[in-house]
Amino acid sequence: MQKGKASLLFEHPAYITAMASIAGKKEGEGPLGQQMDMIEQDPMFGASNWEQAESAMQKQTADLALEKGGIHRRDIRYLFAGDLLGQLIATSFGTVDLEIPLFGLYGACSTMGEAMSLGSMCIDAGHADQVLAMASSHYATAEKQFRFPLAYGNQRPQCAAWTVTGCGAVVLSAKGSENQVRVRGITTGKMVDLGTKDSMNMGAAMAPAAWDTIMQNFEDFGVDESWYDQVITGDLGEVGQKILLDFMKSKGHDLSEKHMDCGLMIFDKEKQDTHSGGSGCGCAAVTLCCHILPRLLDGTWHRILFVPTGALLSTVSYNEGQSIPCIAHAVILECGGDRTK
Amino acid sequence: MQKGKASLLFEHPAYITAMASIAGKKEGEGPLGQQMDMIEQDPMFGASNWEQAESAMQKQTADLALEKGGIHRRDIRYLFAGDLLGQLIATSFGTVDLEIPLFGLYGACSTMGEAMSLGSMCIDAGHADQVLAMASSHYATAEKQFRFPLAYGNQRPQCAAWTVTGCGAVVLSAKGSENQVRVRGITTGKMVDLGTKDSMNMGAAMAPAAWDTIMQNFEDFGVDESWYDQVITGDLGEVGQKILLDFMKSKGHDLSEKHMDCGLMIFDKEKQDTHSGGSGCGCAAVTLCCHILPRLLDGTWHRILFVPTGALLSTVSYNEGQSIPCIAHAVILECGGDRTK
Repeated sequence: MQKGKASLLFEHPAYITAMASIAGKKEGEGPLGQQMDMIEQDPMFGASNWEQAESAMQKQTADLALEKGGIHRRDIRYLFAGDLLGQLIATSFGTVDLEIPLFGLYGACSTMGEAMSLGSMCIDAGHADQVLAMASSHYATAEKQFRFPLAYGNQRPQCAAWTVTGCGAVVLSAKGSENQVRVRGITTGKMVDLGTKDSMNMGAAMAPAAWDTIMQNFEDFGVDESWYDQVITGDLGEVGQKILLDFMKSKGHDLSEKHMDCGLMIFDKEKQDTHSGGSGCGCAAVTLCCHILPRLLDGTWHRILFVPTGALLSTVSYNEGQSIPCIAHAVILECGGDRTK
Repeated sequence: MQKGKASLLFEHPAYITAMASIAGKKEGEGPLGQQMDMIEQDPMFGASNWEQAESAMQKQTADLALEKGGIHRRDIRYLFAGDLLGQLIATSFGTVDLEIPLFGLYGACSTMGEAMSLGSMCIDAGHADQVLAMASSHYATAEKQFRFPLAYGNQRPQCAAWTVTGCGAVVLSAKGSENQVRVRGITTGKMVDLGTKDSMNMGAAMAPAAWDTIMQNFEDFGVDESWYDQVITGDLGEVGQKILLDFMKSKGHDLSEKHMDCGLMIFDKEKQDTHSGGSGCGCAAVTLCCHILPRLLDGTWHRILFVPTGALLSTVSYNEGQSIPCIAHAVILECGGDRTK
């Protein structure tokens, strides 16, 4: 059902029937390490270069999600997936062996939200019985793509984030039970560009996009923060979180007690020297699969708004002096009986 | 309705209620020039660099499609769009002003097929009344992204294609009539990689993906080439066309009288020195909007299979010696009364 300007409320919500998270050594040493399915100690994932490493990680995560769900890949009708690299090479090479019809997506670090949105739409419509939604990032491929060679050892400002090496994958299914997490609705983001130009401060660039999508979600569903147990953004980090909370406050919403950010959960800032927090498609995807979904399943939360945020810049646009357009895609996740009736 | 392994037959097909094509000077001088909505003589589209030029072209094309259809942008619920550039910057920057919820897509030159597929799924499901599907490429941004600086003047082998400067956009709508083109069904491609490594011969790399999707379409719908008036691929070019026809023949399908390729239609090989043909997301998108849809509307054809093909390589994967994984997304387009009953 269409709700408001940019939201859908699903009549046939997709159930998350399987999930998997694989991450790197540093992420494994962070606060969520114990909750991840697998920590790979080798940053190369057994491959011969960084990009193939990320592809291998995607393949392993997809395989693990299917294995955990006892699902054969032939029973997955569509794959919605993406990564941060130019021309989506981590996904393209990582998913060849799956032989699943693929919709390649680019939403920067919002990709997991985009994949779950399209996947849920597909399930709600009856276009598929089961789909896989997946997103990944790798510290080394991202640094190579967007910043400096690792060996150069450049200094990073305190507002910079640390790209997560990790991949998260969920199976969305038409069949499920009240005890499984369901995608109740979505709010699809539009491009938001307030003119921020500092590529080392993505949190500041993305916060207005998160704010825009969350406000749109509140408006479209006629709700406010009280409807959610938590509003969880993707990778705003410390700087972006502060801006988001300020922006929300300016519109009369106090999110301070209800807001979490995957970028602030996945690393221990003091011990891990990750400055503003974690980032990358993998940040929200891994945190979703290893921490958020389990908290919904164990009843800690009943309903949350998951809002991965993406900064759609490239080194070309950055070097041409352009600003950073951003986007955020929100997904309403619920578990347990419907408490709104 | 799900059909076979990878196809959908729509109960509520999306109608193409508006379309627009804008292209560059060279494309305007080609065989389809007279049919394009607008030829921009300035390759910079009034902008200060190539990437902004492509963004400006996207914005103009979207605006023109809406104008031609008499549709306000606020009545478009979703935008499905993409381009060839790293991190989709042509799309990200080009669509900010539209303020339409965006699903950013990357399918290389198959993007128009991917956008129309997802857009039609969305309409069929009732998730939207109207969506916009759009894809663009620009010769200069693509050369800069994938090959050599233009000023270097590198020599191109005869199997190389020429990236089209152009953008095509269609409005897909839940409401329409028999006299409008409708998306009857889709077949979603999977990644196909037969090991081709020559980035100057994309046609050879993509032909197996086109073959895979067309064969899947035939199987899923229980049809063969006789069901279509034309099977039209995106940008296989001369080399790729020959391979596709050979592959089809090996499975007992003679497509020689029914196959067209947008890359072979948009340029005059002899006069325009474009070697194997045109390529890029814009090639299939522009040819669709300026030539294919009008031929369906005027009754020349009743039903065609539109199969944009994409090569998902990047300079990083190429320079690391990797092969070129490819994908093709097929869209069944029909106009006029249903002749299959």
